[in-house]
Parts: sequence; structure tokens; C-alpha cells
Amino acid sequence: MELNFIEHIGIAVKDLDSAIHYYENVLGLKCYKIEEVKDQMVKTAFFRIGETKLELLETTDPEGPIGKFIDKRGEGIHHIAFAVNKLKDQLKDASQKGVELIDKHPRKGAEGLDIAFLHPKSTHGVLTELCENVD
Amino acid sequence: MELNFIEHIGIAVKDLDSAIHYYENVLGLKCYKIEEVKDQMVKTAFFRIGETKLELLETTDPEGPIGKFIDKRGEGIHHIAFAVNKLKDQLKDASQKGVELIDKHPRKGAEGLDIAFLHPKSTHGVLTELCENVD
Repeated sequence: MELNFIEHIGIAVKDLDSAIHYYENVLGLKCYKIEEVKDQMVKTAFFRIGETKLELLETTDPEGPIGKFIDKRGEGIHHIAFAVNKLKDQLKDASQKGVELIDKHPRKGAEGLDIAFLHPKSTHGVLTELCENVD
Repeated sequence: MELNFIEHIGIAVKDLDSAIHYYENVLGLKCYKIEEVKDQMVKTAFFRIGETKLELLETTDPEGPIGKFIDKRGEGIHHIAFAVNKLKDQLKDASQKGVELIDKHPRKGAEGLDIAFLHPKSTHGVLTELCENVD
């Protein structure tokens, strides 16, 4: 595989408004977008920092992946996302190297990116997202 | 506070050699340094990606912070570290805004940086490190 840079870090929070207040007023970052991603049952808030982004994730459904994550582990870092080119080829390469894919094919994620997740049991416990900007 | 960029992401692993093999041979990154940080009871391996780094952490003592983390939660993302200037002033600012500091004063961390941690109970569950390159 070939990773370009860290596209974003996903952080699970209980309450988006309260977390945005912390990231803006304590850390000094600026929220530039709030977006709902219905098929992942999340409302997201984005902050730029250097070449990467922080993506806060609040569940819109207790049974969604972020709802379950917070139930089990509390708020905290949820996943890391790497920017790649040729996402389909990267997935094929990962699979050939024994990585279990959550998404065998790219799907649409936040910010219009094509995305796919690798299973944390194949990645030393790190839920790993690959993102391609196909615009 | 004023954050410059993501200095690194800290990832707790059970076995450094096995994890390095995954990061090099599957993800395609290159380990450029292995360093023991005795007062944190860890052996670390570093990888550059874009402007930031991944820092793998293997405990050298089951009672160390990484040993306890893995016991409780398994392998996974442990902390996020932001590069800052004037670390002492940033800590003062954070404290004045109600953030609980794990380190009230900067101390030496890996790669010769001055570092300090913020407590995750003040940061929506994210163990947060601030780093200053004082060379």
C-alpha cells in the first residue's frame, strides 16, 4: 500500500455542541463544517489542523457504530484515516496481504470522499480508513 | 491555545516487532527510529507520514501506562500529540480554561521534545499531548 498523508482523525463524542465548544474555545481550532452522514448514523464536525483534519462524530442512533463505541469505551479517538490514490488498488493490495476489509468496495463518506475501512483485528487494533478525493 | 499541526499519533501495541512488520510491509511506511523512553516504561518506533508521525508504543513493564491501557482496552490508538510553540504558556492557558493537566510543567519526551499531557477527562476522552521542539 501507499499512504499519502493523514486525511483525518475521527473522534467519538457524546455531544457535538459541547465538544465543538472545547475544540474552538480551549484548543483554538475553528469548526468549518457540520455534516450528517446518514448511512453511518453520525453527525460530524470538521476542523483543519495543518494538512489534516479532526472529525468529531456524534451518533444519531444509539445502535449506530459511534453509539456502540461510546457505550463500550466512552468518548475518545475512534479511527485514523489515510489519504490514498487509487483506493480500489490499495484495497486489493491490503486484502492480498491478509488484511480483513470492512468495505470490500469504496463507498461515499463525509466531504464527498470515496472511503473504505480496514478491520481493526487486522491492523493491530486501529480502525483504519482509506480515503480518496475523486473530484 | 494555539496548535500548529499534529506532531504524532501514539498507538499502543503488544509486540513492537510484529507491529513494525505490519506498518512497513502492509501499510508501506518506513520505521526510521526505535527509542526507549524509560520514565514512561515504553519502547517506541517512529514512522513519518506527511507532516506528522506515527509512534508505536510497546510497554517495557506490565504496570506501565501502555501495559495498563492494553490490559483494559487492547491494542489501539492511545493519544494524539499537537506541536505548539511556547509550551509553558499553552499549559497555563489550558489550565485557566479549566483543563486538568497531567503534567503541570514540561518534561522531556521521545525525540528530544519538551512534552506535557492533558487529562482525557478534560478533553472529551482524548489523551492529548502537547510537544515543543526546543532545539
